[in-house]
Amino acid sequence: MAFDLHPQLRNDCHEIGRLNGCHILLHRNSNLPWYILVPETDAGELHELTPEKRQNLDALMDSIACFLKTHHQCHRTNVAAIGNRVPQLHLHVVGRWEGDACWPDVVWGNLPPAAERDQPSIDALRTQLMQFLEKTDS
Amino acid sequence: MAFDLHPQLRNDCHEIGRLNGCHILLHRNSNLPWYILVPETDAGELHELTPEKRQNLDALMDSIACFLKTHHQCHRTNVAAIGNRVPQLHLHVVGRWEGDACWPDVVWGNLPPAAERDQPSIDALRTQLMQFLEKTDS
Repeated sequence: MAFDLHPQLRNDCHEIGRLNGCHILLHRNSNLPWYILVPETDAGELHELTPEKRQNLDALMDSIACFLKTHHQCHRTNVAAIGNRVPQLHLHVVGRWEGDACWPDVVWGNLPPAAERDQPSIDALRTQLMQFLEKTDS
Repeated sequence: MAFDLHPQLRNDCHEIGRLNGCHILLHRNSNLPWYILVPETDAGELHELTPEKRQNLDALMDSIACFLKTHHQCHRTNVAAIGNRVPQLHLHVVGRWEGDACWPDVVWGNLPPAAERDQPSIDALRTQLMQFLEKTDS
């Protein structure tokens, strides 16, 4: 199936990997670890996904929430499917902690600008995350 | 199990009903149909729920998303677990449409104040929602 990421997601994010039909993105804003999952589907909302795609997305969301707590040492995760500006179905999984750049507000519309991570940091994060996911997926 | 709703949720919402171990609340702000689901659990995050509680919560979330589209005629649903201010696990399921009171921004921090619905409206909505949920749950 031909599947193209929405240009806005491509513009806002680094592409980290792909697992079980989901693209894993990392928001370029480096204030927080902000992952975005994009299942390869035409469905516009979570409840419209096929059971198999929903299960894959939920499992990936849960694994990334664990990675946020263990690797990034976040104490809270914010999970959301919004899509008011970008209609392509995508799920935010954001690591949060007291005193972070926009705590306790939500990130959408409130996160101050921050420089992108450098390429070695992104590459290292990709390796660590994909190893973690392959372990929890097996 | 003794379970108490967080006082902030009780303060912000009307209590609509309870199904499969989840409390169903309706935010008092009448600008939008904004439901909040509170599973009876000590878990603080979605990925920490037992599989059975997670399945019940997901099924209820999906049914309410359908109700938002059919009964409230919303064209979009925003679904989120945040909990930065209220740590008790709760899931927002919000009906949205282009041109609504804070479109396309998220509701958190952006929804202007609005009067509460009157009691007959709340009672009618409770009856319609609970009938819809019992039908989809059977």
